[in-house]
This record gives sequence, C-alpha cells and structure tokens, in this order.
Amino acid sequence: MRTLIRNGTIVTAVDQYRGDLLVEDERIALIGTALDIPRENVDTVIDASGKYVLPGGIDVHTHLDMPFGGATSADDFETGTIAAAHGGTTSIVDFAIQYKGQTLHHAWETWMKKAEDKAVIDYGFHMIMTDLNDGTEAEMDALVRQGITSFKLFMAYRGVFMLDDGSIFKALLRTGNNGGTICMHAENGDVIDVLVQRALAAGLTAPKYHALTRPARAEAEATHRAIALAEIAGVPIYIVHLSSAEALEMVMEARDRGLPAFAETCPQYLFLSYDDYEEPDFGGAKYVMSPPLRDKAKQDQLWRGLAFNDLQCISTDHCPFCMKEKRLGEGDFSKIPNGAPGIETRMSLVYDGGVRAGRISLNRFVELTSTSPAKIFGLFPRKGTIAPGSDADLVVFDPNRTVTLAAKTLHMKVDYNPYEGRQVTGAADTVLSRGRLVIEDGQFVGRAGRGSFLKRAPRS
Amino acid sequence: MRTLIRNGTIVTAVDQYRGDLLVEDERIALIGTALDIPRENVDTVIDASGKYVLPGGIDVHTHLDMPFGGATSADDFETGTIAAAHGGTTSIVDFAIQYKGQTLHHAWETWMKKAEDKAVIDYGFHMIMTDLNDGTEAEMDALVRQGITSFKLFMAYRGVFMLDDGSIFKALLRTGNNGGTICMHAENGDVIDVLVQRALAAGLTAPKYHALTRPARAEAEATHRAIALAEIAGVPIYIVHLSSAEALEMVMEARDRGLPAFAETCPQYLFLSYDDYEEPDFGGAKYVMSPPLRDKAKQDQLWRGLAFNDLQCISTDHCPFCMKEKRLGEGDFSKIPNGAPGIETRMSLVYDGGVRAGRISLNRFVELTSTSPAKIFGLFPRKGTIAPGSDADLVVFDPNRTVTLAAKTLHMKVDYNPYEGRQVTGAADTVLSRGRLVIEDGQFVGRAGRGSFLKRAPRS
Amino acid sequence: MRTLIRNGTIVTAVDQYRGDLLVEDERIALIGTALDIPRENVDTVIDASGKYVLPGGIDVHTHLDMPFGGATSADDFETGTIAAAHGGTTSIVDFAIQYKGQTLHHAWETWMKKAEDKAVIDYGFHMIMTDLNDGTEAEMDALVRQGITSFKLFMAYRGVFMLDDGSIFKALLRTGNNGGTICMHAENGDVIDVLVQRALAAGLTAPKYHALTRPARAEAEATHRAIALAEIAGVPIYIVHLSSAEALEMVMEARDRGLPAFAETCPQYLFLSYDDYEEPDFGGAKYVMSPPLRDKAKQDQLWRGLAFNDLQCISTDHCPFCMKEKRLGEGDFSKIPNGAPGIETRMSLVYDGGVRAGRISLNRFVELTSTSPAKIFGLFPRKGTIAPGSDADLVVFDPNRTVTLAAKTLHMKVDYNPYEGRQVTGAADTVLSRGRLVIEDGQFVGRAGRGSFLKRAPRS
Amino acid sequence: MRTLIRNGTIVTAVDQYRGDLLVEDERIALIGTALDIPRENVDTVIDASGKYVLPGGIDVHTHLDMPFGGATSADDFETGTIAAAHGGTTSIVDFAIQYKGQTLHHAWETWMKKAEDKAVIDYGFHMIMTDLNDGTEAEMDALVRQGITSFKLFMAYRGVFMLDDGSIFKALLRTGNNGGTICMHAENGDVIDVLVQRALAAGLTAPKYHALTRPARAEAEATHRAIALAEIAGVPIYIVHLSSAEALEMVMEARDRGLPAFAETCPQYLFLSYDDYEEPDFGGAKYVMSPPLRDKAKQDQLWRGLAFNDLQCISTDHCPFCMKEKRLGEGDFSKIPNGAPGIETRMSLVYDGGVRAGRISLNRFVELTSTSPAKIFGLFPRKGTIAPGSDADLVVFDPNRTVTLAAKTLHMKVDYNPYEGRQVTGAADTVLSRGRLVIEDGQFVGRAGRGSFLKRAPRS
Repeated sequence: MRTLIRNGTIVTAVDQYRGDLLVEDERIALIGTALDIPRENVDTVIDASGKYVLPGGIDVHTHLDMPFGGATSADDFETGTIAAAHGGTTSIVDFAIQYKGQTLHHAWETWMKKAEDKAVIDYGFHMIMTDLNDGTEAEMDALVRQGITSFKLFMAYRGVFMLDDGSIFKALLRTGNNGGTICMHAENGDVIDVLVQRALAAGLTAPKYHALTRPARAEAEATHRAIALAEIAGVPIYIVHLSSAEALEMVMEARDRGLPAFAETCPQYLFLSYDDYEEPDFGGAKYVMSPPLRDKAKQDQLWRGLAFNDLQCISTDHCPFCMKEKRLGEGDFSKIPNGAPGIETRMSLVYDGGVRAGRISLNRFVELTSTSPAKIFGLFPRKGTIAPGSDADLVVFDPNRTVTLAAKTLHMKVDYNPYEGRQVTGAADTVLSRGRLVIEDGQFVGRAGRGSFLKRAPRS
Repeated sequence: MRTLIRNGTIVTAVDQYRGDLLVEDERIALIGTALDIPRENVDTVIDASGKYVLPGGIDVHTHLDMPFGGATSADDFETGTIAAAHGGTTSIVDFAIQYKGQTLHHAWETWMKKAEDKAVIDYGFHMIMTDLNDGTEAEMDALVRQGITSFKLFMAYRGVFMLDDGSIFKALLRTGNNGGTICMHAENGDVIDVLVQRALAAGLTAPKYHALTRPARAEAEATHRAIALAEIAGVPIYIVHLSSAEALEMVMEARDRGLPAFAETCPQYLFLSYDDYEEPDFGGAKYVMSPPLRDKAKQDQLWRGLAFNDLQCISTDHCPFCMKEKRLGEGDFSKIPNGAPGIETRMSLVYDGGVRAGRISLNRFVELTSTSPAKIFGLFPRKGTIAPGSDADLVVFDPNRTVTLAAKTLHMKVDYNPYEGRQVTGAADTVLSRGRLVIEDGQFVGRAGRGSFLKRAPRS
Repeated sequence: MRTLIRNGTIVTAVDQYRGDLLVEDERIALIGTALDIPRENVDTVIDASGKYVLPGGIDVHTHLDMPFGGATSADDFETGTIAAAHGGTTSIVDFAIQYKGQTLHHAWETWMKKAEDKAVIDYGFHMIMTDLNDGTEAEMDALVRQGITSFKLFMAYRGVFMLDDGSIFKALLRTGNNGGTICMHAENGDVIDVLVQRALAAGLTAPKYHALTRPARAEAEATHRAIALAEIAGVPIYIVHLSSAEALEMVMEARDRGLPAFAETCPQYLFLSYDDYEEPDFGGAKYVMSPPLRDKAKQDQLWRGLAFNDLQCISTDHCPFCMKEKRLGEGDFSKIPNGAPGIETRMSLVYDGGVRAGRISLNRFVELTSTSPAKIFGLFPRKGTIAPGSDADLVVFDPNRTVTLAAKTLHMKVDYNPYEGRQVTGAADTVLSRGRLVIEDGQFVGRAGRGSFLKRAPRS
Repeated sequence: MRTLIRNGTIVTAVDQYRGDLLVEDERIALIGTALDIPRENVDTVIDASGKYVLPGGIDVHTHLDMPFGGATSADDFETGTIAAAHGGTTSIVDFAIQYKGQTLHHAWETWMKKAEDKAVIDYGFHMIMTDLNDGTEAEMDALVRQGITSFKLFMAYRGVFMLDDGSIFKALLRTGNNGGTICMHAENGDVIDVLVQRALAAGLTAPKYHALTRPARAEAEATHRAIALAEIAGVPIYIVHLSSAEALEMVMEARDRGLPAFAETCPQYLFLSYDDYEEPDFGGAKYVMSPPLRDKAKQDQLWRGLAFNDLQCISTDHCPFCMKEKRLGEGDFSKIPNGAPGIETRMSLVYDGGVRAGRISLNRFVELTSTSPAKIFGLFPRKGTIAPGSDADLVVFDPNRTVTLAAKTLHMKVDYNPYEGRQVTGAADTVLSRGRLVIEDGQFVGRAGRGSFLKRAPRS
C-alpha cells in the first residue's frame, strides 16, 4: 500500500518545508522536494496544497470507558478514538486502574479488553497504582518490559486513589532501576478534604465550591513535594494536568536547578477559567474537574511556560460525563463526576489560541501536541515526527478552516461542550493512522479495532 | 527587695548605653544614666563595669525529663534549669507531650508535675499533639486561654508523633481562631523511613547513616509543605530546629511573598557539621539528633538567615542522653536516642561565633536569643527586654571572659559534650530571675522550685 | 533644665511600656515605671496620658532651599524645619550639592550658611557629588571625619548630576576605606533621556508623560547595577526614594544573597499612584517627581518590603515647588520642576496608613521613621531611640487625633498639597528637640537657629 | 551534480533515523529509508555506515583577519574557514567593524573584501557599531534589508568600542522596527577599567590579573542591564560569549519572566577555567580573552543552561594570536591581545564533553551548534537542518574516532592550542558545503573563494 501526499508544507518540531511524502504500508518511506513517482505506482494521492502535513497528535491523558463514582465516562474506546481522530490525534495513552487488592496485570488486561476491538487509532496505557506492595513493585518491572512504562500516582482522594509519601517514594525509587516514569496527580488531597467538609458543613454546595475548596496553593504544594521526592530518589517526574501558575513556578524552580521535572497542561486551563463556574442553572458543573479551572489573569504564565519549555506537553484529561450524571452533584458539589470532554478539540484550540495568537510557534505546536509526548513516553521516533521509518500517523491540517465548536457537531458522546459556540481556525482535514486513512475530508473512514496497543520503550 | 546594677552597658535588641538599673521586687523599676540612690535604700548592688547587662536568655526549645524510646533525657527540670541559668538563660519553653488517646490537659498536668518543684527559672510549655480529634481541638482553645499558646506537630515519626496533612491543616485552621501558634518539626518522615529501612537492610548501621537517611531535601520539602498549609489556612507558622540551607530557602521564599513564616535554628547547626558523624569509636552517636547535622559549606547561609531575619530565634533543642544510652544504637543507628545537650552553652557559643566573629551585631544577638522568642511566644514585654515594668530577668555578661567547654565543668547531667574542648569568649557572670540572684559570679545561688509557670499570651 | 513627661506609653523600635521620663538639659536622664520627683525639682511637666512618647522622627531625605532649573524649592531651612517639627520630625539630613568644578567643602559651607541661622531642629548633610576626581576623593575622607558621612550620586540627569559607572565605582571603593556610605539615585538616565526626547518629539507633553518616560524597569536596572557595583567594591549601598516593586525585587535579591543593600521609600510611593497624573487642568504636575508615582496595584509589595525589612527607612524627598513654578512645564513635562512637599505629613501618613491599617507594627513604625535612619546614617544612639543618655528629641503623639491634610493648614510654604483633603488619624501634639519644646499642643514655640549641625559617625 | 549519502544515521535537532539522502546540486532533494537510485545516476556516493549525518555546524562568533591593538588575528578567511570545515563547521558569521567616523557600509565592504576570494565555506557578518548617530541608524535599516541582520554592541572598552546606554537603547529601539537583532558584549567596562588601573598601579601585571580585574559580577551586571534595556525597548536581545553562572542567572531570570533573551556560550567556558591562568612561563597568556575563564566549580551551571535552553548556542569567539603577539603583554596583562583559537575544535569538544559525557542529547548537540544559531540569525531553513530543500551543508561525523588536539595537527594558523594534548572522541570525516565536498576523509578538497556571502533574513 502506497500513499503519496503532495504539495503540502511538512512541519515537525523543528522543520517546515514544502515537500512530497511517500507512505509505504504503515511507514514513511520517502520525503523530497518533489517526488517523481508515476501515479500507477501509488494507491492513493492526497493533495495537501495550502495545508500543513503534521505528525499525528498524541494525547497522553485520556480516560475512556472509565468508571467514576457510579457513573462511567461517556466515551468508550470507539467513540473516543473516533473523536480523537477527527481532531487530528492518532495516538492516545489512556489509564488502566489498579484497584486496591488487585494486581497491575489484572488492571492492564481489563483495560486491554475495553480497547482492543474498539480503538480506531493506536493506544497505550499508563498504570494507575492505588495499592503499592512488594508484589506490585515487582510487577512494575514486568510492565515496563511489556510496554507499560509509566505509572500514575495520586496525592489526592484519600481512601480511593491516594498513596502516602512513603509509597510514592518507593515507586519513584523503583523507576530508577526499571526505567519507568512516574506521573503525578499533584494536589494535597488531605487539605482539600478538610476544605470540602467545611464548605459542605457551611451549606456551600454550588459547583463553584469545587474550585474554592481546591486552592492553587494545594496544587503547588503537592507539585513541589512530588518533585522533591523524585529529586531524593534521583529520578525524573512528570506532573499531569498542571493547572495553575503557582504549580508551574514549582516546576520552573526545579528546572532552574537542573532537575528532570516535566509537566503537561490541558486546553481547559488555557482557555477556560474560574469565571465559568459562575454559569447559572448548575452550568458550572460542566467545568467540574480536578484540578479546577483557575484565575484568567494567570493564564499568560501557563502560555509562557509552554513557550519556554517549562511545560512540555498539552494533553486533554478527556473524561466526559453527560449533564444527567453531572446532576448527581446538585446540592453537593463533591458528588459531581469530575471531568470534561476535550479529546477532539485539543489541536484546533491550541493552534488557534496558540499559534495564530502568536503565543507559540508552529514548530512548538507540533512539539507540544506530538513530539514531546512521544519522546517523554517512549513512542519516539515511531510516533511524534515526520521522518523516514516513522509510522505514517499524519494529519493534513488546514490552517485556514474555521470551525464552530458545538456538542452537536463534534463527535464526542457527551451532551455539552465546554467551548460551545467558540470559533476556532485551523482543523484536521485528513488523517492517516499507520498509513491508513481514518479521516478523509472530515469524514470518518476508519474501522473499530484497527488501532494497536502501543508497546512503549523505557527511558534510555 | 531592691537591687541596683551599676555602671554596666545595658543592651537590648535595639539599644546599647551606659547606665544604672534599679530592680524593685521582681521587676525593673528605673533606668538612668546615673542613679543617685543611697546605698541604704538598696539591698544589693552589683557592679557591672566593663560588662553587658542583657535581658535573660529565652530558650524556647528544650526537652527536660523526656521519655524517648526506653531512655529519658538526662536533665530534669532542676539540673536542666540550673545549667540554663549558668549559661545566661532565664526562661525556657519545654514540650509537654500528648500521647495517643490522652487529653492535652493530661499532658500539661504531667509536665507541670515534672517542673513545679524543680525549676530554678521560669518555664512554659508548648503542647506536642499526636492525636487530633474534635475533643483535642476544643482543648486547644482552652489551653491558649490558660497560657499554653503554642502546639508542636510532627511531619515525621509515623506511628509515634506524626500527624497527617489533614490533621495538621485542621490544627492550623484552629489557631486562626484561638490565637495559638503551630510549631512544626518539618521533615518528611515517610521518605526517611524508607531510606532508613533500606540502609539497615543494606547493612549500613553506623551513626553517620542517621544523617545520610535524612536528606536536607526531605527537610526542605516538609518546610515548604508546612508553610503552604499555613498559607492556605491563613495563619502564621513557626519551624523548629531548622538545620539546612535548603529548608531556609523555603522560609525565605515565603517571606519574600509576605507570609508570616518564622523559624529557629540551633547552635549545633551553626557550629557542628556532618563531618562530626565520622568521629571514630561510635563517637558519631553523640551528634545523632533530628534533623541531623549538615554540610559545613552551607552554614554561612544559616548565618545570613540569622543576620537578615529569615531566621528569628536561636534555641537549643536540648535533649541530652548519656553515652550508655546512645550505645543502644550500636549496630543500628535508628535505635540511637536522638538529641544532644545544649541548654547551657547557647549564649556563649552564639556570642563568640556570632558577635565576636562579626556575623551578627550585639543587638541582634539579644534579639535572637531573647527578644524575638519572647515576642513570638507571647512573653513580651514581660520577658525579652530591659525596660521599666519588665521582669528583672537579667544577665551580667562578661564579653571578655574565655571559657573552655567541657562536660566535666559544665552543669548539664550528661557525660559528654559535643563542643568538648572548644574555647569561647563571652560568658554570664551573674544572673537574676525575677529580681532574685540565681547565679552570682558563676556560682549557683538559686533554689529549686522558685521558677514559675509562664502563662503566655496568644498572638494579638 | 528638667522636663518630666508623665504617664505616656513609651515606644521604641522594640519596646512599648507605660512609664515616666525625665529630661535633664538636652538629654534623657531617667526612665521609670513611676518617677517620684517633686514638682519643684522640675521646670516643665508634660502629661502624656493616653498618648505615645516616641523618639523624634528623622527625615534623611529633604531638599530645603535648593535651586533647581531656575526655581528654588519653596521651603528654606526655617519654614521647612518648622513644618518638620509640626509633623513630629526632629532631625533632618538635607543634601549639599557640589556643582561641577567646585570642591565638596565649598558645597558644605554653602549649605551650612543656608541652615545655620534658620533651622529650628537639628540637621545634617549628605554630599551630592557631581564631579569626581582625585581631589574630590581626598575630600571625601575629610568630610567623613567632619561628620558628613554619606555621599549621594546620580545615575540619571546626564550633564547635570549623573556620574559614569567608573566614577561611581571609585566613590564606592573609597567608602570601603573611609567608612562613608554611598546613597544612590537609581534610574537609568540615558534610557530616560531617549524616551523623553521621543515623547516630546511626538508631541506628548502632558505631565503624565513624565511617568511614562521613566519606566519602573529603568529604576530596577539602575538599582541592580548600583548594588552590583557595591558588591564588587565590597561596600554597603543605600538606594534613595525607591518607588517601584521592580526595584524592590533587586534589593530583595541582593539581601537574599547576604549583601548589605539598603533602601528607603517615601510616603508618596505608598499613598499616591500613577492615576494622580491624570488629574485635569495640569493638576498632574503636582506629582511630578523622580522617580515618578507607580501603579497602585504594586504598592502592597512596598508595604511588604517595609514590614519584612527589605526597605529600612521612610523619608520624604521633600522638595516643594509652587504651582507657578510647576507651570514652567506647561507644554513640556520635562520642564516641570521635580518634587513635592512631604516633610510635615510623613509621620501621620505612615502611622495612619501603616500602623492603623495593620500593615506594620507600632515598633516598626518607630524603626522606619527614626531608629533605622539613625543607625544607618551615624546618628545612633544620640538620635533614634528613647534611652538614658540619648538626646531628648521626643514626640508626644496622639494616636487618636484626626487631622485633615490641607495646604492651608499645613506649615510648608507651598500652595498645594498632594494629599489635599485626606484624613489621617495620629498626630504629634508636643515635640522636644534636645530637651527644648519646639511644638507645644500643636503650636510652634521654638526658635530659628536653635537647630545644630549633626556631625555624624562613619560606619563602624 | 548528484551525491548520494548512504546508510548513515541522520540526525537533526529533533530526529534521528537510519536513512539515505540525495543531494542535487546545492540542495537536499530526497530523504528515505533506502533510496533506490542507480549508481550511474549519481556522481558521488558516500557511505556513512556507522556514522552520523549532521547538518553542518554554524559558528556565529568568529573574528578572522581582525586588527586588534597593533596585531591581527592569525587566521584570515582562507585559513580560518579551512580550519572550520575540518571541524565540521560549514557556515560562519564573522564581525565587520565600524570604526568611529566611518559608515556601516564602509565596514561591510571592507570585510567583504577580506572574505570573498578566500572563504571556502559560506559566511555572513554581524556589524559591530561603535558610533551611533542618525545616519548610522538609517544604515541599520538598509543593512537588515541587505542581509546583515545583526548588530554587535559593546558595554566595555570605553573609547574604543563601548557605547553609552542611550546609544544602546536607541539601537535596540531601531531593531524593533527593522527586524534586526542586537548582540551584546556584556561586561561593565568602566568598572573593569578602574580595576585594571588599580591592579597595574599595584604592580599586579601577570596574565591572571586579566581575569581578576574582570569579575563575573561585572558580566552579570551588564547582562542584566542589556536585557533590561531590551525589555524597555520591547525587543529581543542576544548575549554573546556568556562565560559565568552569574550572568547566566540574569538570562534565566529574564526567561522566567517570558522575555526573549538569548545567549551563547563557548567551549572555552565549558572546558577551561581560571586555573589555566596559573600556567607558568607566561603560559596564562594563552587564555587571555574577554570575558575571562571562570571558576571550574560553576561550569556545571553552564551545562545546565545548555541542556535546559537558557543558553541557545555554542559559538567559538575564535580570535587567535600567536605567542609572539601575546608577549606584547609581558609586564602588563592589559596589553595581551585578547582571544584564542577555537573554530576547528568546537564540534568535537562539545560532542565529547557534552553528548558522550551525558550532559546533553545528540539532538541538543545539533541544535546548539547548528539549528538554533540558524534560527536566531536568519539562516533557517536554508542552513541548520537536514530537510528537503535545505542547503546540502552536511557533515559525516564519526562518533567513535578519537583525536588528540594539538596545534601542530590542527589547521588553525596559530602556534599554540588551549586544549593541547586533550583527547576527544567524535570528529568530522567528510564535509559538504552546498553540495560540494570540502573535506573528504579528513582532507581538505575545497577551494578558496567558493564560500558565498550569506544574506540573512530579519526576525519574523
């Protein structure tokens, strides 16, 4: 199978040039200023004139088909990956969850079953560990060898997900030997729990109290602590869904001292803000996620972090719940399922609000949405770039197409969109996953089950 | 009872002047350039020519008669306060300990009994809380009203003293209402416990591993966390026995942001260092205390902190154990009782190594050893200064007298001294406690039981 | 001559106590809780019940009788010091100016003549150096011995006051030997000159362009540079009239590194702001001073600096010009004489907006307005405290008296007041200068010429 | 002309893959996993098995054929560019110097004549401006259009190169409109001049006093000032030859605030240190350059800066003088011609001490030595990457070849080498400049005059 993409502007994290690109089977075979290949030698020709050819987006933070407090996140691996593909994302790294008393491998198997017949693009897993013991530590080593090379820990949600500092530290130490990477949900859960109890006791139950009981300083504290533990353990650390300037400062301070501290943020922290919680008629519930949305005035600092590489990735934390489920928390904000949709809108939002707005370069856009995630999570050079030998995960991206974001026209299986009505310019037209068309001129042409499990490499 | 102190150089945290001083009963009545009082109107005349008249030292961190892992600290309230007085200290704040399941008031009573017939100088108590519940919180309010206005919490020693972050945060919130102050032992105990287990498992049992398993970063992390929790709670915080430049930076950063973060250090962190753990024949055990001694190269930063008020107090953490008890930890450093003597040597060490060495001014010396502790812990202006109406806790201090520190000649009831053989210049000659002579020309002339409980005031 | 001040609350930079105070001739002789002195042995008795007895204020930045661009500052040493006394200030340090080609001693003599028959309170001089050569350097040493121990240099006003970095550095090096102190006007004058030229060329002539052409970053840059030069020279430095949070950060960073960097701010930077330049009808000209007023939003950071001792003094930069003279700059903001009145309102403004507003303590108020200036500029312990042997420069200060600031009722000889109509609570009732009444119940009862030249001590 | 490079590992700032590469005429035409091109269709085939194929190095700081205090730098554009090519560098940006009273265009023409018949690789020019007036400012605009898009200014060497802050600020403002970039020699020259005079006056004349009179703080100060001026002007700035951790901190602080501040360092600051000045027999003179070599202990911080992108480029400041000329400064260090050779050794030193030592990645090595310089100075994508359409400036680099650095075997025309005897592993075997072989298996096969003037693009 050979596909020729012609006349596009090929963009990577460092390059930008006019050129043609030949895909053979699943991989990029040839790149040139002008490929002189007879039409009959090629199965498909895609004309990318006036458009960018980008490495497929990589979203390293999704929660598809995830149980959460009685509800389940609205997208499964089929609807979720279709939506991802529409948005220009060709790889995801989702989270398998070890519940207390279970093995890590059980968790992996469970999530593999959720994904394998459904995913339309490639997928990998981080392993959420909620119960660390000698057996689990040994399993970590095995998982790393098997391509699950990252482990997510929580500093919040005592009794459910939270690990104590000793367990976190042991897990960090273990990655020093096995080459895995610890991903951290960094909020001080104990402090938050006290604030939540006191707010509820005081009758403060509206959605906005979700944010008011999760102060940015509690995120900054946990971020600092996580980095300090990693420093003592002598290993890297990756902070997930960093939301606040205060937490970012902790990452900056660490990097200024030369520590391998990494962090991602998400579009919601760049484009939405605390003000949205004031939306009437329980509308604030749409934005209930953890960490919560922060002050608009400090978003510029996140953009600075993205531009100056104190933040390395933009992921989505896609975890949608329909309003019916959100309403479980009417009268008690702490019962609102946490999470919001985003898997489909990431690339357009960041292109529009980042590149077009002059906050980041086009190369940096590719780096943040694809190359860096690939490098940090062991997918590079298979994913994350456009180079001979790399997987042909490719996006023909029209920088001039304007789209109005709306729950109705987007493909995520959720009945609202946090950006409803927002116009963005820049969108994926055509998407290839390992050489096969998944999206063609905005239409899904892929097939459930075609996505493969991504066996990721350990840190080198 | 009237005592006249003549011809001295009176020194406070701000002033220094030649003058005479009249004590009536327990208080300072009159200060003047030259008091013209007939000899017969005065009971005692002290000639302070060529000497400083200082406010009595205040040591806000002592552990007298304290049980610790089978042993008990070597000084009780009699021997300990006699030693303190020899050194120029006229007030101490010791620690009462609530053990799990006990009330705070039970702890207070227990410690009152230890002190009341023995103390030769005034004493107060911080309350160590190891078990926080609704009842304890209510007791906190009562204690503040009764003059126990500070509460010490531990972030280390899980299972013994350590509180989780939620309890710490609740205690902090409580002081926002009752005017108490939280004092924090700031080390990440969970991290330390893992390091200790692994060191012992690896056969690393010598005293120096006590230090190597308690890294400065673990202290810095806990210091940062304690301050962050206090920031969220909107209350001040006081870090006890800060030992490392890394932890100091956390305090500095907080103060640079305007937060009411306070900290003390101790002479051992200014004059001793990690190198001492290398002392042969288990000699390193003398220096086993928590936090441990740190790198010599970074001590200058602690001195800078003292000079620039990022550190506000110098206390001792006096907690002596004889070598027999230290030897409980031969073959397992984690069994060495933690602590060392210091109550008697503080003023001379800091005067010699601070004032004479040009690192701090004479006024700052008074501030660090007396005035600031008094202000922070609700003893001012009764204690901590030389002013009409203040308690006549006074020290006639000879800046030119040289003393050789030695376990034999010092008065602490412990069979070694960490500064053995060190010469210091500057020593207390004569000491008054509430107007009565306790030390006269270097001889103890006081009486056990004359010290009173210090009912301290809450923060204003 | 003996004066007894009874029943007041005596306040110093560290103490606060109820007491009586006896003045003999020029000095404080006796302080006690209750002085039992027969009425006939005392010339004057002042009842200070319900009031504070404070050390007289010290204003180390005034410009009396100063020529400036054709005009002369409106207050001479008589009207200016009378106004100062009304406000509770009993010592000033004014500036003698060496013009190019003149000796320093000529400048001193000139300014001595301006002051000696006029001043009603004590006065000293800083020496402004505009022309540094070998002769001037030698004169610096002589001046230090003669009590002129500080030298002000300018990093702005090329061609008039500005020195190049080499001359500044030489002057700094010189103070390393002679014990003098360099005071710096820290703004990058060259940058400002370019901005001013371009603004005028663009027709931007209104008073507000004075501020818009003197950016805070230009002050921060010069502040950083001044401190760096002092660091290389190994000497302290004192930044005058620090106005911006940006410049303060430079001082903080230096102090965090242990450097002896000091700075003052002035009430105008704490209570007025850029917005005042928008006052219509050329009213903005009232506030034209250098550095200019800054953003209101950043004033909190100056207050933090004052509370945490990153700023050590509050002076006034009193340099008033009547509106007639301000109008020289109609049509060209660069011709507006720089300066505003403030010598009389300092203590009340800072007490009201600082102590009463809870931003600084009462002790810190005394320290900032009297004790620290005295210590930094070689006047302590003669001035700046209340202690036996110190000069009886005393203020009976009513913390409850409310005054409305107005040009008409204030005593400065200038036809407007920048705080016109502002109500402040806390004011000087009675003021003594070296034991003699200068202000009695708000009335001037002193005499021109009674003030003495202050021979100041070098750094020790 | 077609050249095929086969079987190499192609490396860019982001990618690394096995592949073949076809050069047509001057440019890269085709890249593929395996190019199936008949031998007869290709002029030259280069086998790169086991080797890296890198974008040609770009050295943006050289001084060829430069007059300096009576001497001239030892390499002209022929010997210098031959040496550069041997080392794997295929583009240089040298400095044309405007002397006082001359036009910028005169300087350009003068330097074009030096280069045009001699250079064997491509060359561009920065313009050193020593005399800024209205005419010069207008010329700046013209030069930018003509491809001289960067301007170097000096904050040192008063009377020769130094500009005052006003002129610097004007030049910065001008680049805000014309898209040029200001490059800054950031040392406080006035401070240095005073220190030099005093050292000489004190008889301190040995080479090491060159370093002792140019303190790191004087570099940090100027770096901070340059960035502040650029901040006020609202333009980027580029600091040349940053040598000290202190100066780096200024760049870091600026970048942490989001400012477009850039800086280069040079191999000498990474591998040599102050200790070298102690070399006996006037040997210290070999290392006399400005800024001087710094403390070895702080070099790690420069490496951190390189790894974390606080430093963006590594250039050489190649400016060699033979020992005969160095000896002009015997008896007076200030007369030693400043500069040392480095154009040939850059790539090997940085590969060996950076990549092999684990301090930076291979991609980062390419970025620092080629891609970033190209992007910052308007050469990208023509230079600085391996992509279709880019100039075929290519280096076949053997990562396993070990070379002993020695003046005799290196090709720079200077009689000593600062790294004499040092072994480095990693060296250029074969080098193409715009598609033509310049170095083949370590032999020069190019021709003088084949290098072209690089018309660079302005900032976009």
